[in-house]
Amino acid sequence: KQQTRLSGRSECQIDRITAREPNRVVESEAGVSEFWIPEENDELECAGVEAVRHTINPKGLLLPYYPSAPELAYIVRGEGIQGTVLPGCPETFETSFPSEGGKGEFFDKHQKVYRYKEGDILALPAGVVHWTYNDGDRPIVTIVLRDTSNVANQLDRTFRKFFLAGNSQSQQGQQGGRGQQQRGQETRWEVPSEGRTQGGKRRDEPRRAEGGRRRGQQEQEGSNIFSGFDDQILQDVFNVDYETVRQLKGQNDNRGFIVQADNFRVITPEKQEQGRERQRSSPSRGQSGRRGGGVPNGFDETLCSAQLSANLANPTHADVYNPRGGRLSSLNSHKFPVLDLLQLSAERGILYKNAIHAPYYNLNAHSVIYVTSGSSRLQIVKNDGSAVFDDWVREGQLIVVPQNFAVVKKAGEEGCEWVAFKTNDNAITSQLAGRFSFVRALPEEVLVNSYEISREQAKSLKYNRQEGVVLSPRSTSPRET
Amino acid sequence: KQQTRLSGRSECQIDRITAREPNRVVESEAGVSEFWIPEENDELECAGVEAVRHTINPKGLLLPYYPSAPELAYIVRGEGIQGTVLPGCPETFETSFPSEGGKGEFFDKHQKVYRYKEGDILALPAGVVHWTYNDGDRPIVTIVLRDTSNVANQLDRTFRKFFLAGNSQSQQGQQGGRGQQQRGQETRWEVPSEGRTQGGKRRDEPRRAEGGRRRGQQEQEGSNIFSGFDDQILQDVFNVDYETVRQLKGQNDNRGFIVQADNFRVITPEKQEQGRERQRSSPSRGQSGRRGGGVPNGFDETLCSAQLSANLANPTHADVYNPRGGRLSSLNSHKFPVLDLLQLSAERGILYKNAIHAPYYNLNAHSVIYVTSGSSRLQIVKNDGSAVFDDWVREGQLIVVPQNFAVVKKAGEEGCEWVAFKTNDNAITSQLAGRFSFVRALPEEVLVNSYEISREQAKSLKYNRQEGVVLSPRSTSPRET
Amino acid sequence: KQQTRLSGRSECQIDRITAREPNRVVESEAGVSEFWIPEENDELECAGVEAVRHTINPKGLLLPYYPSAPELAYIVRGEGIQGTVLPGCPETFETSFPSEGGKGEFFDKHQKVYRYKEGDILALPAGVVHWTYNDGDRPIVTIVLRDTSNVANQLDRTFRKFFLAGNSQSQQGQQGGRGQQQRGQETRWEVPSEGRTQGGKRRDEPRRAEGGRRRGQQEQEGSNIFSGFDDQILQDVFNVDYETVRQLKGQNDNRGFIVQADNFRVITPEKQEQGRERQRSSPSRGQSGRRGGGVPNGFDETLCSAQLSANLANPTHADVYNPRGGRLSSLNSHKFPVLDLLQLSAERGILYKNAIHAPYYNLNAHSVIYVTSGSSRLQIVKNDGSAVFDDWVREGQLIVVPQNFAVVKKAGEEGCEWVAFKTNDNAITSQLAGRFSFVRALPEEVLVNSYEISREQAKSLKYNRQEGVVLSPRSTSPRET
Repeated sequence: KQQTRLSGRSECQIDRITAREPNRVVESEAGVSEFWIPEENDELECAGVEAVRHTINPKGLLLPYYPSAPELAYIVRGEGIQGTVLPGCPETFETSFPSEGGKGEFFDKHQKVYRYKEGDILALPAGVVHWTYNDGDRPIVTIVLRDTSNVANQLDRTFRKFFLAGNSQSQQGQQGGRGQQQRGQETRWEVPSEGRTQGGKRRDEPRRAEGGRRRGQQEQEGSNIFSGFDDQILQDVFNVDYETVRQLKGQNDNRGFIVQADNFRVITPEKQEQGRERQRSSPSRGQSGRRGGGVPNGFDETLCSAQLSANLANPTHADVYNPRGGRLSSLNSHKFPVLDLLQLSAERGILYKNAIHAPYYNLNAHSVIYVTSGSSRLQIVKNDGSAVFDDWVREGQLIVVPQNFAVVKKAGEEGCEWVAFKTNDNAITSQLAGRFSFVRALPEEVLVNSYEISREQAKSLKYNRQEGVVLSPRSTSPRET
Repeated sequence: KQQTRLSGRSECQIDRITAREPNRVVESEAGVSEFWIPEENDELECAGVEAVRHTINPKGLLLPYYPSAPELAYIVRGEGIQGTVLPGCPETFETSFPSEGGKGEFFDKHQKVYRYKEGDILALPAGVVHWTYNDGDRPIVTIVLRDTSNVANQLDRTFRKFFLAGNSQSQQGQQGGRGQQQRGQETRWEVPSEGRTQGGKRRDEPRRAEGGRRRGQQEQEGSNIFSGFDDQILQDVFNVDYETVRQLKGQNDNRGFIVQADNFRVITPEKQEQGRERQRSSPSRGQSGRRGGGVPNGFDETLCSAQLSANLANPTHADVYNPRGGRLSSLNSHKFPVLDLLQLSAERGILYKNAIHAPYYNLNAHSVIYVTSGSSRLQIVKNDGSAVFDDWVREGQLIVVPQNFAVVKKAGEEGCEWVAFKTNDNAITSQLAGRFSFVRALPEEVLVNSYEISREQAKSLKYNRQEGVVLSPRSTSPRET
Repeated sequence: KQQTRLSGRSECQIDRITAREPNRVVESEAGVSEFWIPEENDELECAGVEAVRHTINPKGLLLPYYPSAPELAYIVRGEGIQGTVLPGCPETFETSFPSEGGKGEFFDKHQKVYRYKEGDILALPAGVVHWTYNDGDRPIVTIVLRDTSNVANQLDRTFRKFFLAGNSQSQQGQQGGRGQQQRGQETRWEVPSEGRTQGGKRRDEPRRAEGGRRRGQQEQEGSNIFSGFDDQILQDVFNVDYETVRQLKGQNDNRGFIVQADNFRVITPEKQEQGRERQRSSPSRGQSGRRGGGVPNGFDETLCSAQLSANLANPTHADVYNPRGGRLSSLNSHKFPVLDLLQLSAERGILYKNAIHAPYYNLNAHSVIYVTSGSSRLQIVKNDGSAVFDDWVREGQLIVVPQNFAVVKKAGEEGCEWVAFKTNDNAITSQLAGRFSFVRALPEEVLVNSYEISREQAKSLKYNRQEGVVLSPRSTSPRET
């Protein structure tokens, strides 16, 4: 199957890549969202992606919305429940518990919700309604890739978020200065002090004066989509009173898009039955969900019973493991079929202290790396042989490695853990050193003549490194720039 | 299967949508063509589509041509026969009847032709030669969507029409003022009086001075493609005399591209054997045509025996029906397999007086709505919660509803009928109110906390409207702006 | 299956097409490379392709590289061996021969290499490492299409070449004046005398001052990708000494990217077992390579055992043959499955003296024609009926025929041979004259009325030419302009 990603650009000159902090912060009642919004001509725009990191406080509810492009989320920390509303799918979850006032039982039915926890990947298809709730006792931190260049996003390459509740117009939004935000992990949900004085109320600030470029993000600052409909029409179609319609429109709502929900009881199947074993334990469910009656015949057979989350962090599922170096795990559409729809995949990497991720390139995808802990020194080399990045990437930073660009990672003293999102549902890497590298695959004659080296040197290039992808640190300490 | 539509734009800011009359009219000998040509930055350009409405008089022949992008046609009125020339397919129709002079029989053989009538959808694949003939006794009116952003259109996102006969250079073409043409349905084939004085002859008018933008349309004003070849080469390759080549080039032809064909006998299978039952009565044919010997092996197995038309109007095939509100029917690639090639689908909607098409959005497609009778008030809301359209759409007007934008329709006093073309062969809508809406799929806890409403209000939002997609009018009359 | 090619342009106005010589020459130690680089708005840019013709001297080695977009190569002359390094595939070729000094045996193992010769098509997937070696006794001449608009090229529509060895920065590169290079076939690897005086050394010439447009090509002028990595890191990851790393980086290498390799022994299976019968003799291998265990599960099942070359020139495999006119052969993804991955196909055509390739158009692809011997007069007609090309195309020239544009070829006195690359893995042509043309498929009534001709003339148009695609020259000599 061919990937059908759209190149947003006829030309994209990448001379320098930056390890980026988020460049925009939006505070909500029960959390904070930090955005990596592409600037003109930077490598995020070239790769056709955006990112956001949500911190959702305990009892925080991320209001329901549908995105114009698919999103892939990695749960850095915490646990919660996720709902995805698939049109045409039945309400298969039924709940009942004693009502609040003690007078009888309370019933509800709704579509499937699922639990997730640290280390899980959540697939959020384009156009589908999502919400999430933190029912744990510590903040959820999640990093979300938005694939604006995905073919699912037909109108243009802008990410649009259609809220079904709330009123993000009244949120506090300010653009953090790029590079100014050297905020640590622990204070991540603190916005910079300048700009906080206005509180959570609507400010009639002029929209950012960067010309038309950041419209995509500006559009997130509007009201929910019900506010554009006539009150009477909404009363009609829902058959409810004016007061309910007024609340639906949320025009006086200034809680932001992560709201405090203190009374929130949603029943999910027993935790023990699922959790991190989910992915492996139910292959037949995933299968039948997707391939059902032979030819897939539409949206509901495809998705109603599909798995929308899978675990990426479990060490026992590692694809690459070197006890002296670290490990890599990946989720592609073979393991996690819904990725076939999203045309995205993800990799989790862990390097121990000073270990090296051998030089490689992504053959058929861009890679967007987010460091979840520790730090790594990266070198990224473009096709003319020049390094477009040679620096450390630290916890909380995000960096784009464009397709085919060569990259090497060396963990710092505290080691390094990261998640990488890839713009292909079956991303392939090609190693430039180590046991799986191209030098092994080349005849010695080619090495001897290409590099003007002796046959012994050729043999050493091919065979001196017995390790594969993740290399243990060597005794010699590398020169740090 | 992923849709592979091309986004024409890196950014497409849609702040206002217009219900459009055609903005260009071309008269021919036996009919008139009215075009919706995108202007710079309007919603037609953003959606990557154009449209044309042909009125073909009785005995009118639309000359053979091939388009650079796929077209999907809906027959608003009338009936006729359609020929599609598929390269590599056999001439399977043989006809014989007494020759005109009475001296013996006349034989002919040619590729399949098929009859169509009011309510049919015709699929016109890109690059394939089409012609059509009105053998009925009243004008055919057809509305045609041209999907210029389709991947089949490799060169750019301009629609190009390659005529094989005629000489459209000599047609009268003038650009109707946008919005000035409040012409009724009955005089649709009347061009505005200014500009008609020159009659059907060539005018050496300067091409429209809008810069390069409308080139796509200008290119339709040329001669047929044989006129670019050397006379001698054409005599050689056809082995015919100079006179025939001169006629082939059609350089003195000023009939336009819909010509009068008084003697026109083409035999098609008995009407009774097909017609509006066509689509349902031969599922095995459609199947075998497409899936033939397992792996499809090329163009001719795919298309030679494929159905190229299907009925969309038959009430008994409705997908959604509410006897107090109206009905909806759709044709997607599951029902009408050739749509898989075109990556388009269509929907027919009928709303009774004052009935409501509940708020929804198109999850994976743009929708291009053409009102075939009556009128509806529409509200279209974009992601920032603002209405980009809030007005009536009347018979003969066309409006674009971009992907993910929320829309509600309420029929006027005469009811409303429309056809909607969608830029996905399996277009999905997601309801925002009614029995299938997202509110039913959400846990009450989410509604309570999202909208800051009571549990009773949440229940009323979820369950007060028992109807689904098409809602009956309520006693209260909605406020009209 | 839908083709998923990207249109690089929202508008592409093609008013004139040029038969092009290469517009840039790069000399290497053991060969020369001549490039067809798109200029602003020309038909190469519109078609989203580039081309290069390599001349590789005997014992010349084209250094290993990986391209950002797929390439399809036709071997015009000579023979050699090709290696393609597929990540994750095993080293299945083992060789042993007496070592040079006579002391014992020498062993090596590496991935599959294959022999090719004149008339073969080689498939070079994007992102995959390739090298080639001339072990014959005459120069290899190969013409290579680079599909920059292919979806595999995610970053933009620039072709990027990532060298793994050598240092193309030190090559001599100059841009030949377009149209100035009327060099004959025999001196093809001679660069124009202006600019040769500097010899093979690095010149600190200013990069071409055309603004940003030719960056793609400029980027080929860099060093190999190892030169961007830190010396110490490379020593670490390969576990080799500094001297080897210095050679890996190739910074003092000024041999260009085709180098002299005098000692080069690579064993391939007996020539007799393969060669030009390869393609037909092993259908089961090709099949199983692609369809392996039912559902393809990733890169290595897809490609490890795939055929990457196939013969296009063998007369006995012709698809169209007229003993008085010539023949055509094509390779599409049905015959040569890896083309499904590349989304490209190729056609080989041979016209005898004065024979005619009947008018046709490419229904679903652009066609990039390279004349390998002789010459043809071509007429290319666009949709407005005007000829955008009407001239001779000679040996060594390349011309683009855009999708849907009508074209006729008439060979000159020496006949004409060409290879055409097509931007669809299952390219379809539609004939405008001859036994397979649309006139046969149309009812006579349509011809009579479309061209205002008699029934006899219609019959002559339909049936006078009994030949199909390749037409024998007629007695009358066509008028030459």
